[in-house]
Amino acid sequence: MSGNEELSGYKGLALETLKKIEAEIGDLIRITKGNQTYEGILIPRSEYGDDKHVVIKLRSGYNIGVQITPETCIEKVGKGEKPAFVAPPLPEQNPALPKVAIISTGGTIASRVDYRTGAVRPALSASDLYSVIPELANVARIDAQILSSVLSENITPTHWMEMAKAAVKKIEKGVDGVVIAHGTDTIGYSAAALSFALQNLPVPVIVVGSQRSADRPSSDAALNLSGAVLAAAKSPFAEVAVAMHETVSDTSIAIHRGTRVRKCHTSRRDAFKSVNAQPIAKVENNNLTMLTEDYRKRDPARKPIVKPNFNEKVALIKFYPGLNPAVINWHVENGYKAIVLEGTGLGHVGKYCFNAVKEAVEKNVIVAMASQCLWGRVNMNVYDTGRDLQALGVIPLEDMLAETATVKLMWILGQTSDTEEAKRLLKTNIAGELSQRTPYEETSPQ
Amino acid sequence: MSGNEELSGYKGLALETLKKIEAEIGDLIRITKGNQTYEGILIPRSEYGDDKHVVIKLRSGYNIGVQITPETCIEKVGKGEKPAFVAPPLPEQNPALPKVAIISTGGTIASRVDYRTGAVRPALSASDLYSVIPELANVARIDAQILSSVLSENITPTHWMEMAKAAVKKIEKGVDGVVIAHGTDTIGYSAAALSFALQNLPVPVIVVGSQRSADRPSSDAALNLSGAVLAAAKSPFAEVAVAMHETVSDTSIAIHRGTRVRKCHTSRRDAFKSVNAQPIAKVENNNLTMLTEDYRKRDPARKPIVKPNFNEKVALIKFYPGLNPAVINWHVENGYKAIVLEGTGLGHVGKYCFNAVKEAVEKNVIVAMASQCLWGRVNMNVYDTGRDLQALGVIPLEDMLAETATVKLMWILGQTSDTEEAKRLLKTNIAGELSQRTPYEETSPQ
Repeated sequence: MSGNEELSGYKGLALETLKKIEAEIGDLIRITKGNQTYEGILIPRSEYGDDKHVVIKLRSGYNIGVQITPETCIEKVGKGEKPAFVAPPLPEQNPALPKVAIISTGGTIASRVDYRTGAVRPALSASDLYSVIPELANVARIDAQILSSVLSENITPTHWMEMAKAAVKKIEKGVDGVVIAHGTDTIGYSAAALSFALQNLPVPVIVVGSQRSADRPSSDAALNLSGAVLAAAKSPFAEVAVAMHETVSDTSIAIHRGTRVRKCHTSRRDAFKSVNAQPIAKVENNNLTMLTEDYRKRDPARKPIVKPNFNEKVALIKFYPGLNPAVINWHVENGYKAIVLEGTGLGHVGKYCFNAVKEAVEKNVIVAMASQCLWGRVNMNVYDTGRDLQALGVIPLEDMLAETATVKLMWILGQTSDTEEAKRLLKTNIAGELSQRTPYEETSPQ
Repeated sequence: MSGNEELSGYKGLALETLKKIEAEIGDLIRITKGNQTYEGILIPRSEYGDDKHVVIKLRSGYNIGVQITPETCIEKVGKGEKPAFVAPPLPEQNPALPKVAIISTGGTIASRVDYRTGAVRPALSASDLYSVIPELANVARIDAQILSSVLSENITPTHWMEMAKAAVKKIEKGVDGVVIAHGTDTIGYSAAALSFALQNLPVPVIVVGSQRSADRPSSDAALNLSGAVLAAAKSPFAEVAVAMHETVSDTSIAIHRGTRVRKCHTSRRDAFKSVNAQPIAKVENNNLTMLTEDYRKRDPARKPIVKPNFNEKVALIKFYPGLNPAVINWHVENGYKAIVLEGTGLGHVGKYCFNAVKEAVEKNVIVAMASQCLWGRVNMNVYDTGRDLQALGVIPLEDMLAETATVKLMWILGQTSDTEEAKRLLKTNIAGELSQRTPYEETSPQ
């Protein structure tokens, strides 16, 4: 996002309108549309904004974009003061404390809001962090790095590669843990990607986000970040995990395994849930408690291995009644190497898709099946549909999330171009993404 | 599914192998593969089965498909008895009871299992039903109709049309409520479709399924069906709803609004959840309790209106990091009229999709945004990504499920080819599928 430059990010009609009233970022603006009036501080826009909206920060703390039309009346009602944010000096570092690297990729958590304008800017210098969350000084020595400033919906497999490399570089320099600050929209995908790309980890890598920015009274940024730093500094496990609010109140942080976590609410602070698994740990009152005995133990002597390549020729296709099977054909024709079908129930798609699936498999494309139910396990032995799909060559993904399976296949096909080896890896549990079961467990419905 | 004919459904290698040992459906079979042995009753296969698997019902009650390979040893170890199922006579009908039509479309709930072979066959004659669930005779007079016998993953919009017409025909004949028995995989989609297609309902239409077939001790079929019949016969509401187990125990049935319900577990009996809403009613100890005051009241004098047309040129596309925007272009080029994007978080897709979205909108394709979080509300005013997508013409779907939105657009475009009218209908609450909100509610994260 932009800084505090004069009318930064505005263009076209919006820019002209603001120039006409001689407004600058930070000025108090009043906009009247019909019988509605909005009053707030003019804030900068991103370079990708359109040319029709003016964005102001209301007194309530909310930002609102108001479209400029011929009927809109816009006035400057107050002059903004120039910002004067000076980072405080670094607190004295206690050399006895563990060292934690914080790598910022962007998103709400990684930003510091200018309280005057609401402009969000990357703010992960160590001194910025200590000034926002002073209690960090009691937990760890912080080494802060800004890797990128990307809204997480814009994260792609290339960013996963960069994150993996940056994390392993810090680990090789001897930190006791890594925290990656990330936007929440795709945090689950990135955590899964890092879970596969970072192998043989000696220390934990904790991905953390926040649902509300630090200028909101209800922000979860500070608690999530301090929980993540605590987990990175002191946890007994050495895996990729995600640290987010466990409940809506500020009492505890859940630590989710990176391959099992999913954003399950658009806005709540406890939006993140482990699916088909329990969180592996919990942070409460500055104490971390493990919730499972099944984890990779921390061992600083272990050498990390980074396998950062991903192949983007992997598709996730969600099934629905009437899905056009030609969508499957299209992916095959366009060089896709693998398709994850997000089927119904125990792992089904309509039989009108069978031919397309058959053709994909015949052309050496891996076709795998997850369930759009999210919870539960794919079982393709119960009904004819499942058995037929398996006979066509479809691979059941057990209790793996469709999102994680998609990331896993991108990673697998970044490591090997041998289809049989890829299928073997897909069925092998690599980072806690799938669990085995007894052949006739109680979840089978028939 | 097939009946009890000799080797029904078997073909190719499987058929040859079974003929060689002179096996018939119902015989006790032993199959040995390496050091694993499976013993059970030979059961019929569906016409869509492959030619490689033999399916037996194990003593545990589970069916298993075993692939025949050169290494497989198969023996007949016992002769089956011929089935002798005779439906009991109809109980005396009490003319004072409400009349309920049960329309069977297929799926586990709509079937009766031959206990000897495990073969599942449509079994919805009134006398069959009374013999399986005798307590129905105290609740309602049943009028049973077999409309189809389709596994629900094979249901398409054409089936929705047939269901809507069949239901309204029964209503016009004066029943006090309609129950539609349906496979669970796509019950949410069909319930949403009926919610839009059946307007001005005088009496309730209850869609019901079961997660376990009636031959399993843990079956939920009887309780779900009797709950559905009770709701159809006596509930004070006149809407389309889904009746399924509220919890894993046999204590209560939740009645979900048809546009808000989703299968959220592959196999549990309490798999169905209302999303962004509460169930509208609950059945416990043969009593129905309303859980909301916001519902359409039963009124037998009202005339139902059926609007059964659906347009299949509507796509649901789930976003993931690295989604190829050419998939969006492909749908536009292939005559699609609307696309529901299942975006991340508050309703986002990567900016690398913006051009494709822009082109779709310019070609008069409706592009609408739901969230893959499932829970919560799309809010495209918070971040630049959302504002930009709205500026490109993307319609936020508020708190509507992506699945429901897809069905709604199929229905809307079955009613009108006027894009502006279609957009207006999309944003209008028709059957409880979306709720309004205050402009700055607490769910906004920034």
